[in-house]
Amino acid sequence: MKKALTIDIGGTKIYNTIINEKGEIIGEIEKLHTPKTFEEIKSTLENIVKKFEYEVDVIAISTCGSVNNTNDKILGSTGNIAKGYPTMDFKALSKKPVYVENDANCAAWAEHIIGASKGMPYSIMLTLGTGVGGGIILDNKLYKGKSGAAGEMHFKMERNHRRKCTCGSWDCFEAYTSGPGLKHTAEEMTGKNEITTYDVIAGVKNNDKVMKEIFNCWQEDILNGIIGLANIFDPDVVVLSGSMAEFVDTEYLTQKTNEEIVTQPTKVVKATAGNYSGMIGAGLLALGVTE
Amino acid sequence: MKKALTIDIGGTKIYNTIINEKGEIIGEIEKLHTPKTFEEIKSTLENIVKKFEYEVDVIAISTCGSVNNTNDKILGSTGNIAKGYPTMDFKALSKKPVYVENDANCAAWAEHIIGASKGMPYSIMLTLGTGVGGGIILDNKLYKGKSGAAGEMHFKMERNHRRKCTCGSWDCFEAYTSGPGLKHTAEEMTGKNEITTYDVIAGVKNNDKVMKEIFNCWQEDILNGIIGLANIFDPDVVVLSGSMAEFVDTEYLTQKTNEEIVTQPTKVVKATAGNYSGMIGAGLLALGVTE
Repeated sequence: MKKALTIDIGGTKIYNTIINEKGEIIGEIEKLHTPKTFEEIKSTLENIVKKFEYEVDVIAISTCGSVNNTNDKILGSTGNIAKGYPTMDFKALSKKPVYVENDANCAAWAEHIIGASKGMPYSIMLTLGTGVGGGIILDNKLYKGKSGAAGEMHFKMERNHRRKCTCGSWDCFEAYTSGPGLKHTAEEMTGKNEITTYDVIAGVKNNDKVMKEIFNCWQEDILNGIIGLANIFDPDVVVLSGSMAEFVDTEYLTQKTNEEIVTQPTKVVKATAGNYSGMIGAGLLALGVTE
Repeated sequence: MKKALTIDIGGTKIYNTIINEKGEIIGEIEKLHTPKTFEEIKSTLENIVKKFEYEVDVIAISTCGSVNNTNDKILGSTGNIAKGYPTMDFKALSKKPVYVENDANCAAWAEHIIGASKGMPYSIMLTLGTGVGGGIILDNKLYKGKSGAAGEMHFKMERNHRRKCTCGSWDCFEAYTSGPGLKHTAEEMTGKNEITTYDVIAGVKNNDKVMKEIFNCWQEDILNGIIGLANIFDPDVVVLSGSMAEFVDTEYLTQKTNEEIVTQPTKVVKATAGNYSGMIGAGLLALGVTE
């Protein structure tokens, strides 16, 4: 069975391991801090590749930022990572094939092959965490758009410039449904700046009325986004992943979505491919695993 | 060259003509009122087919309502047409092949083959009229989703149940960017119920300050929707069609969209395939014309 060295490059951590064509993790999981400069990131990647490339068939990279349609270059800027990072020449890291894809797209592919959307041709994945990522799978293929950048879940939830989004625009889905989005909603509803996402989640667990109202408002924003995506894509399933996904009520979201859409019934479910779905999905894509 | 009898079935009018594989109209354009009952609609269609089927290779039908993935049945309800209409057995109309597709999808296909999105693999069409229709073309194929109903442009523009939409839900793109949406915006901004879409358009032409503000607010809602779709799909082009599209400033929309999206630059243009693009697109689809 073929194997991939798979590396997940995020703004704060770089992980690596080895996976096989079944999407099984068959190596140690190594975790490093993402260095602050381009040169240091480059040499970190070179060291990882040098150490493991002899035992694998391909090098797979799951990265922050959008990736082009030939899976070798980052498109545009990527937020909180060294400024020069998008210029990285990934192909130069190894003489073996190097395959790069956006982390949310990788995670969506892992769900499609071994996780919550397995066997379903049309799925939308939303990764709810510090930011909100998106991965779109249509007719069993990863959807990338004309340049490779598709699946950015920056669509507007309000018309009147109410919340600034990290993307520079206003009122995007991310600004309401990320972890910081929940904190922002809590601030708006309580008038207190010091309230945290953790406070809200803890409050919900303790059955606190105000915290439950805040949480429900945040979950309603997720619902509103899902309704739009279900009307646009008519998907088999919407998969929720990321650190914030564990708190949502997918039964409620499924029922409400199906009450409001004009397309055919869909499902909202939680991701099941686990914390390393980015590395797994990158490996499966790099190994050409399509089912 | 092969020919199609093509019929456009809307809530108020039924048109028919004959087109060839180049998308050229080569017959008379016949226009009828849409009858009030299912039986009358059925016999109207039977009469049209009986009159022309001998001279064509296929029967093409562009219809209101969403259509399944085998292009022979309406899915769900379709607003202002006879209640039983979705049960129509289109295949039974002729011994020749009968091909049915949603009208906005047909219009998008006409633009893709002979109109504003010709030569561009990824396009989104928005039909701004009494309602708002959508047609999505990805990688040179009409995107239909799991059941055929995809491309419904009912995504939310506001979070707090501000405007009821014709679909039964709240605050959809259609509720803000259709003709009635412009009237609604005008009512909100002036406090007057008797103001019409026509008043706003006439006022803009006469350089009236208030009417221009109302129009700009409506156009900003179109912009907000396009930004979201461009981030989700990373399309080559967004095509605006329908009776309300002639008034928008596509240069402004293109510039503003490209300032705000995180995907790669796109274009906003007006449709060019003309008033009968639904019939033309249905014909081209039924004749299997893909470029």
